[in-house]
Amino acid sequence: MLIDEHQLPAYARGCGILGAGGGGSSRVAQLLAHGALSDHGPVSVVAAEDLDPDGLVLPLGGIGSPTVGLERLGSGREPGVLRRAMERETGLPVVAVMCVEIGGGNGVLPVAWAAMLGLPLLDADGMGRAFPEAGQVAMRVRGVPSTPAAMTDETGRCVVIRNCGPDELERVARAVASAWGGLAVGADHAFSGREASRVALTGTVSLALRLGRSVGGVNPVASVVEVAGGRLLLRGKVSEIDRSDSGGFLHGRLRISGTGADAHRELQVDIRNEFLAAWEHQTIVASVPDLICVLDDSSGEAIGSESVRYGQRVSVVGLPCQEIWRTGPGLRVAGPRAFGYQVDHTPVERACHVA
Amino acid sequence: MLIDEHQLPAYARGCGILGAGGGGSSRVAQLLAHGALSDHGPVSVVAAEDLDPDGLVLPLGGIGSPTVGLERLGSGREPGVLRRAMERETGLPVVAVMCVEIGGGNGVLPVAWAAMLGLPLLDADGMGRAFPEAGQVAMRVRGVPSTPAAMTDETGRCVVIRNCGPDELERVARAVASAWGGLAVGADHAFSGREASRVALTGTVSLALRLGRSVGGVNPVASVVEVAGGRLLLRGKVSEIDRSDSGGFLHGRLRISGTGADAHRELQVDIRNEFLAAWEHQTIVASVPDLICVLDDSSGEAIGSESVRYGQRVSVVGLPCQEIWRTGPGLRVAGPRAFGYQVDHTPVERACHVA
Repeated sequence: MLIDEHQLPAYARGCGILGAGGGGSSRVAQLLAHGALSDHGPVSVVAAEDLDPDGLVLPLGGIGSPTVGLERLGSGREPGVLRRAMERETGLPVVAVMCVEIGGGNGVLPVAWAAMLGLPLLDADGMGRAFPEAGQVAMRVRGVPSTPAAMTDETGRCVVIRNCGPDELERVARAVASAWGGLAVGADHAFSGREASRVALTGTVSLALRLGRSVGGVNPVASVVEVAGGRLLLRGKVSEIDRSDSGGFLHGRLRISGTGADAHRELQVDIRNEFLAAWEHQTIVASVPDLICVLDDSSGEAIGSESVRYGQRVSVVGLPCQEIWRTGPGLRVAGPRAFGYQVDHTPVERACHVA
Repeated sequence: MLIDEHQLPAYARGCGILGAGGGGSSRVAQLLAHGALSDHGPVSVVAAEDLDPDGLVLPLGGIGSPTVGLERLGSGREPGVLRRAMERETGLPVVAVMCVEIGGGNGVLPVAWAAMLGLPLLDADGMGRAFPEAGQVAMRVRGVPSTPAAMTDETGRCVVIRNCGPDELERVARAVASAWGGLAVGADHAFSGREASRVALTGTVSLALRLGRSVGGVNPVASVVEVAGGRLLLRGKVSEIDRSDSGGFLHGRLRISGTGADAHRELQVDIRNEFLAAWEHQTIVASVPDLICVLDDSSGEAIGSESVRYGQRVSVVGLPCQEIWRTGPGLRVAGPRAFGYQVDHTPVERACHVA
């Protein structure tokens, strides 16, 4: 399978949906990837089984606030710096790029980076969505060490992190990204081709493409919900936005007032880069690790937490997360309690809904 | 020349004075160095000319707030982690340890670290005193690249920094130290034995020893002032302390009310880890890059910014800095304007004084 300039829009649309509001703007990333694909040619998407077992898979992603990513677009030096740093740390040659998270711009930029490096993209990612923290990856749940890790930005400066666990990695990486103006690009939780099918969430690049292609028709929101097996939570208008950048994150809250059949209902959605939880009448109706997505009501396109605007007509949908996040070890890393919500997780398929 | 357990107290006293309030507690560092010297034997102090020209000099120092150094004492793993990281970065074998800054605990701990590594200590440092920022070193003024640099702490975690200038290094290192609880140990601005006599401030370990030995007699403060060629600015009592940790620094302000011949006079001293400037009647009477030291009035021992207490009877003295800091390039890095004071530097020897 190839991703070229023709596949890219559908792929970016799919990544946008899987971002659950986070991962950075998939639109901005799409423009960057378009340029890279036309400069370097299409990127081949490979299955875990087809990797050189002794090569290194390089999980790449941006870390920081998605708002900053709207303005700092990268210079193209980033993937080379990270590849060299990680090859030097591990002694292994990089044989493929992987998205740390398939969601948002972080699902799309690795296409540009793979093209620049002349490497294939693994049909897999570390989250099956976007999550706020560097340590919230399947590789962690499956025992891959968080470090060595490397970070860089558009200027080519580089930080290498060793001997840190996932929480420590997150703390240091976030601090460095903040010191660099709120955004950096990093590689962490790297693993060999041999381990790929065991430790990564396979098939998610294909899923993003499928999801992106499904958006369309007279009721695009309904097709997203159907393809992803999710639920429509509310149709309405964005009536309040409270959003600020602090500590390397975009924090905030949305209020969405129902319209049509949902008039007199109201959802409140918490933001920490991603949409973490949707509340109705002081009760959580959907939450991490499931995906809460805010879709443009007419086009079905996902709206990122950094882009959502007052008055937009939207549908809020809940999509089921990858199975790993519903296991005990997965919930400990990315369940509601890992985000400070004092509730157990209720799968979004069982959420009360209107559809 | 050797530093053993017998030389250590005088050396630590001298480093305390050269700290200008900063560099961390020389008393706490003295206890740690005492242990290392009794475990590993004395440390030989070598001149720049005696170094292997192709070996690496490893400048080591703590970064963070001196208050945190009172409670986090290190595990002994730090120097080995930094040595290995810097040897790996440069491909050169480390042949000597150097104090990044001779002042305060940062002048004393490298004795412990040299003992642990079985390496000599270079009779030199990077500042001739203590300064708040990692980039405020003579090596920077003389063209040594700031990176590669390495950081660690007592747990053995490690961050390597590449391709960063001095301000960038400071920003990233401070962020990492903050993420690690306010304190870390780092190596940066490393250079070869061949460059040592050109880029480092030589003879400052000897100076600290000499200064420490001079403290004594009936008027210890006067002997410090005489040996260092400085000025007594005020004799008095600490009448107000405003001190807080933020952004990886200890910030604050002291008020010292004159006693005896200085009754009715009052000095205010600004703190950013070090004592930066002394004010009298809204005028700066002494400032960086010169040293402002607060000495215990009866013992002549220096009091660190983290240790000064209300009601202490002290002498505030100004000591001249190393010549490099009074040159144009030196003042740009560590002159009053580099710290935000809108004044030109007046050498402390010309400050108004009572003595």
